[in-house]
Amino acid sequence: MVVVMEERASEEEVQHVIAQLTDRGFDVHRSTGQLRSVLGAVGGNRAFDIRLIEVMDGVHEVLRITEPYKLASRTFKPEDTAVSFGDFRVGGDEVIVMAGPGSVETEEQIAASAVAVKKAGAKVLQGGAFKPRSSPYSFQGLGEAGLRLMRAAADAEGLKVASEVMDVTHIELVSRYADILQVGARNMQNYTLLRELGQSRTPILLRRGISATIEEWLLSAEYILAGGNSDVMLCERGIRTFEGYTRNTMDISAIPVVQKLSHLPVVADPSHGTGLRDHVAPMARAALAAGADALIIDVHPDPDRALSDGAQSIFPAQLDRLMAELRIIAPAIGRSICLDPVASRGWAPPAETAH
Amino acid sequence: MVVVMEERASEEEVQHVIAQLTDRGFDVHRSTGQLRSVLGAVGGNRAFDIRLIEVMDGVHEVLRITEPYKLASRTFKPEDTAVSFGDFRVGGDEVIVMAGPGSVETEEQIAASAVAVKKAGAKVLQGGAFKPRSSPYSFQGLGEAGLRLMRAAADAEGLKVASEVMDVTHIELVSRYADILQVGARNMQNYTLLRELGQSRTPILLRRGISATIEEWLLSAEYILAGGNSDVMLCERGIRTFEGYTRNTMDISAIPVVQKLSHLPVVADPSHGTGLRDHVAPMARAALAAGADALIIDVHPDPDRALSDGAQSIFPAQLDRLMAELRIIAPAIGRSICLDPVASRGWAPPAETAH
Amino acid sequence: MVVVMEERASEEEVQHVIAQLTDRGFDVHRSTGQLRSVLGAVGGNRAFDIRLIEVMDGVHEVLRITEPYKLASRTFKPEDTAVSFGDFRVGGDEVIVMAGPGSVETEEQIAASAVAVKKAGAKVLQGGAFKPRSSPYSFQGLGEAGLRLMRAAADAEGLKVASEVMDVTHIELVSRYADILQVGARNMQNYTLLRELGQSRTPILLRRGISATIEEWLLSAEYILAGGNSDVMLCERGIRTFEGYTRNTMDISAIPVVQKLSHLPVVADPSHGTGLRDHVAPMARAALAAGADALIIDVHPDPDRALSDGAQSIFPAQLDRLMAELRIIAPAIGRSICLDPVASRGWAPPAETAH
Amino acid sequence: MVVVMEERASEEEVQHVIAQLTDRGFDVHRSTGQLRSVLGAVGGNRAFDIRLIEVMDGVHEVLRITEPYKLASRTFKPEDTAVSFGDFRVGGDEVIVMAGPGSVETEEQIAASAVAVKKAGAKVLQGGAFKPRSSPYSFQGLGEAGLRLMRAAADAEGLKVASEVMDVTHIELVSRYADILQVGARNMQNYTLLRELGQSRTPILLRRGISATIEEWLLSAEYILAGGNSDVMLCERGIRTFEGYTRNTMDISAIPVVQKLSHLPVVADPSHGTGLRDHVAPMARAALAAGADALIIDVHPDPDRALSDGAQSIFPAQLDRLMAELRIIAPAIGRSICLDPVASRGWAPPAETAH
Repeated sequence: MVVVMEERASEEEVQHVIAQLTDRGFDVHRSTGQLRSVLGAVGGNRAFDIRLIEVMDGVHEVLRITEPYKLASRTFKPEDTAVSFGDFRVGGDEVIVMAGPGSVETEEQIAASAVAVKKAGAKVLQGGAFKPRSSPYSFQGLGEAGLRLMRAAADAEGLKVASEVMDVTHIELVSRYADILQVGARNMQNYTLLRELGQSRTPILLRRGISATIEEWLLSAEYILAGGNSDVMLCERGIRTFEGYTRNTMDISAIPVVQKLSHLPVVADPSHGTGLRDHVAPMARAALAAGADALIIDVHPDPDRALSDGAQSIFPAQLDRLMAELRIIAPAIGRSICLDPVASRGWAPPAETAH
Repeated sequence: MVVVMEERASEEEVQHVIAQLTDRGFDVHRSTGQLRSVLGAVGGNRAFDIRLIEVMDGVHEVLRITEPYKLASRTFKPEDTAVSFGDFRVGGDEVIVMAGPGSVETEEQIAASAVAVKKAGAKVLQGGAFKPRSSPYSFQGLGEAGLRLMRAAADAEGLKVASEVMDVTHIELVSRYADILQVGARNMQNYTLLRELGQSRTPILLRRGISATIEEWLLSAEYILAGGNSDVMLCERGIRTFEGYTRNTMDISAIPVVQKLSHLPVVADPSHGTGLRDHVAPMARAALAAGADALIIDVHPDPDRALSDGAQSIFPAQLDRLMAELRIIAPAIGRSICLDPVASRGWAPPAETAH
Repeated sequence: MVVVMEERASEEEVQHVIAQLTDRGFDVHRSTGQLRSVLGAVGGNRAFDIRLIEVMDGVHEVLRITEPYKLASRTFKPEDTAVSFGDFRVGGDEVIVMAGPGSVETEEQIAASAVAVKKAGAKVLQGGAFKPRSSPYSFQGLGEAGLRLMRAAADAEGLKVASEVMDVTHIELVSRYADILQVGARNMQNYTLLRELGQSRTPILLRRGISATIEEWLLSAEYILAGGNSDVMLCERGIRTFEGYTRNTMDISAIPVVQKLSHLPVVADPSHGTGLRDHVAPMARAALAAGADALIIDVHPDPDRALSDGAQSIFPAQLDRLMAELRIIAPAIGRSICLDPVASRGWAPPAETAH
Repeated sequence: MVVVMEERASEEEVQHVIAQLTDRGFDVHRSTGQLRSVLGAVGGNRAFDIRLIEVMDGVHEVLRITEPYKLASRTFKPEDTAVSFGDFRVGGDEVIVMAGPGSVETEEQIAASAVAVKKAGAKVLQGGAFKPRSSPYSFQGLGEAGLRLMRAAADAEGLKVASEVMDVTHIELVSRYADILQVGARNMQNYTLLRELGQSRTPILLRRGISATIEEWLLSAEYILAGGNSDVMLCERGIRTFEGYTRNTMDISAIPVVQKLSHLPVVADPSHGTGLRDHVAPMARAALAAGADALIIDVHPDPDRALSDGAQSIFPAQLDRLMAELRIIAPAIGRSICLDPVASRGWAPPAETAH
């Protein structure tokens, strides 16, 4: 931390700050300029609240030098992390697509979804069994019955399963059926939940809170990593801004920014990111072009009748067309996309790529 | 709901929308103008996602007419709700002050806090035993031991106790020691927690999420009210904006807006609202002048050594001075403030007030 | 406009609202439901301030049905507008790239820029001669001398010229040298300037204000169109949000949204959109993948020594690599990019595209 | 400026940064720690764009130590600035109220406004003759005729006049009639205008841009101060946030923050700050309680028929009642309010105040 004193700070004020920092376990180095003193402080607790120094008399400004997170940072681990699932990895050369309905509703619905997801070339079936709804009067999910249906539908198609945990009490249950535990945006700072997920060995997909800074998002990942679970995927899903035409503003630039700050893979969610079906495909293409490691997309066999998220769910035929577009884009960033036998039939990667 | 069709919408598109609405249980009334058709839809589920209609072909815009919440609205209950605590009420003529440290740290610290709080004329001692911290490396609270110390300190001074619950597993425990359960901003949309609090009979102080719209805040209150707990106080504590000088932007205008939309009492938290000690007093005065029913303020006997929230905690002497200022302001809005014998000693209310 | 009355509104209040609307030139149609009255009002002034009705007694909510802009909307003109420049058009099948330094500095610098821009396959040389700077102590541009140097450099390479006008007094002067007049984000609501540009016959590139809603942006375009200048290009260049890692948050989703609402072509500016060199390429690719009609990119022969915008300017070699990536992406949205002889040498478009 | 190098930065990278800073006129002091090097740079241009260093290889972070503005800062001028107008001052012990209609419409309207303003005890009549309107189809103001009417109405009541300049071409004209030139939010970064206002000797009321940071606002004040006009008043009028119930979110906390950073007086505008009549009084009281030096309030003799800003204009009787409330609050911050003979009749200041 660097403490910049005011020009008119008295010697007593400077000494008071030095004493406070020393008390807190910092090593302090003072440089006295012509106009003002500047103090450099190293050591101490990574989580120290710098505002404690900011409010002291004679202090002009306090600047933090180290990121408040450690395990999530590239400084700590320079090479990319990839999360492995049997025959594929999130964070490698291949870009992975996850898709499925907002919630599991019936056996037919989830089975039809799984078929569509597989046919399009995606690798993971997503679907909610426990739904966080802003209104207490909305459909709240099928619970364990939904998980069981989804697991069966995924197994029939050779897909992995991703589903949300809303509470510590769900972890054990959802882990029995799912390969990926999703943390929703509203729970990004539910620290009790994050701490418990650190004890799990199931990979986590951590959605960014609707108004979370990138630093806060990485701090939430740190909670999970610090508990011992190193399989964390970060998922950008739109932030809240003043603009109301789209439900959220999908922060595409967060993708390259996070990849620079952290070694964790980044997933993009264009469905929540825009909230409207028409904008899902353009934003999915944009996220891939910006370098996302995976995409997670709401698709439903009959979105107009969906019990949740219907407006942001695309039709299976739209997913097929989107996948064709994504396959054209992927080589521009030196990557391939979902190259399984069914999906790649009739399509050949270009002979050379841009990188 | 009002559905505005596009000028070029075909008759088939209009019929498709009508069918979708009818299926969903709405009564539809159509008016066909010179340029476009407009559909009025009543009935149906209050939580219906209007985006489902927005994405249909030929639809120009969908406008919701009813608020998505019911029990929290003034339409449902026109008269003010006051939450009673023995000899005082939050939401009546008297403005209540709650104060205390960010966290309970030691027996001496919480006892000294209680003395200062009582002396200033406040009625409720607040303090955290379970702390939601954005870093896993920060002090996380004393747990039950902290609650026990706080209860003893409050009882010795004749104060009520307010403390935060972070998780469903805390509710029973915290309720044994506290008179008010606080829900933090990060948990405003933790629906599992809200649902359980609806089963409790302890009054709830529900902080607004850092990026929650007023509608979302009232929907979260609705979760608690719908469970049967009608003692909900809404607490404004600052929203996230582009401005970085203050940690948050305290949304003072939310106070009169919420009071117009809802019958629930509104509490203002200038400590979290600004994040910096120097700005607590001006914002406390502003919140009172805007009509807040209560204030909740971080005060600490030695803020420079606080284990949490020290930078936003004021000194006991600052609280005393602030209370004197608040007593001058209260009559401007036709109210009094904390008129207990100790606090009002030497102070007499003005003979007449403005309202 | 639709006026929703409160459930408890008196007949007198309803009549008062009807009278106010009739006075203002609206035709009013009333439907009286079981719970409340709803008034439909048509005609009247497109710019009528609906808040005037909102504040009336007994009014619950007022909903606007028509967009406040007309000439800029797709309702008015369903087919795409393309702005033509001799042998190319912005808004057609070919995606156009504009590039150049933040400001014209010297004859050598702008000539080197023009060579790099041409070599990469871009069609327009951009550069500032009048610079809007937030500090009065920053470099403010070379003025007319800069325009003269830029014109000469562009002519030598067969490029068009785009440059900013900050004030009505610049219009005539800049028009003498430039083919495109840029309006900066800070001037998006400088109505005196917009009105004058409506009188011009030079195409306008209208940057979105840093906190302008899409509706406000289109209203600003309306000012120019209403004056008679129909060659308006809309330029997304990042909005202000709570996130501070990037200078702005580039709103990629605005691209498809605006294309749905308006017939005007959309240009994306990834340099201002991110403010940092490293993020320009990912966001340029993302903007193209989302459907932008053109890109405008800061490039400088020696960005570390640039007098303005150096940090967001890429090196000529980076522009070359980016163009190669963009050429791979364009077919995914059924478009080509900058197919002039120099740039396309050694590159052949894929045999088939996705659409 | 402090430059923090990455842990893995090479010696060559460090030397490259030092060379770049030295070239730009900075004195550089290097301290090499165990983990990383930190460079302190002093001197150089106040307006230097620190992003130029941020993008260099091996640089972890760059922190600015000095504010980018000078004349506007308290470091430069520690004592408060008060702007004088004959028998009163903005920025002294007395809090000044300015009031009037959004636009001058007719002789009767402005005369009735002046009478109401005077009767309430306000000192300045405000009113627009040139109106910045987001729609080209809205009323644009009466121009010089309006100024003439307003001057006459103000003179008849012994009031000062405040009116907006939208463009450099208005300055000379408006100055002939007005005592205060207002700069609107949309023009806060119209640098051509600011520069010209620096040449004027008429006091300026500079409204904060709707998404301007406090730093940008003070930089805009700097433009005027740097030109030689030292009579600048800063006016908070609401910022744009995600919340839509109020048109803007009035940033009350900006009042104490700006007063700490700058010596310039701060005016609060609760009419634009909320956009709705009902919320004007609570926010006016809040702004005063937070320490505003003056208030500027939209009042209209017949707001329902106002040609602009009617929804945010209060009735004369509401202004009277608000003034009575403000007079109760002022002593809480050690100030008086508008103590002219008419207004103070029947009211006596309290014998003692809180400070």
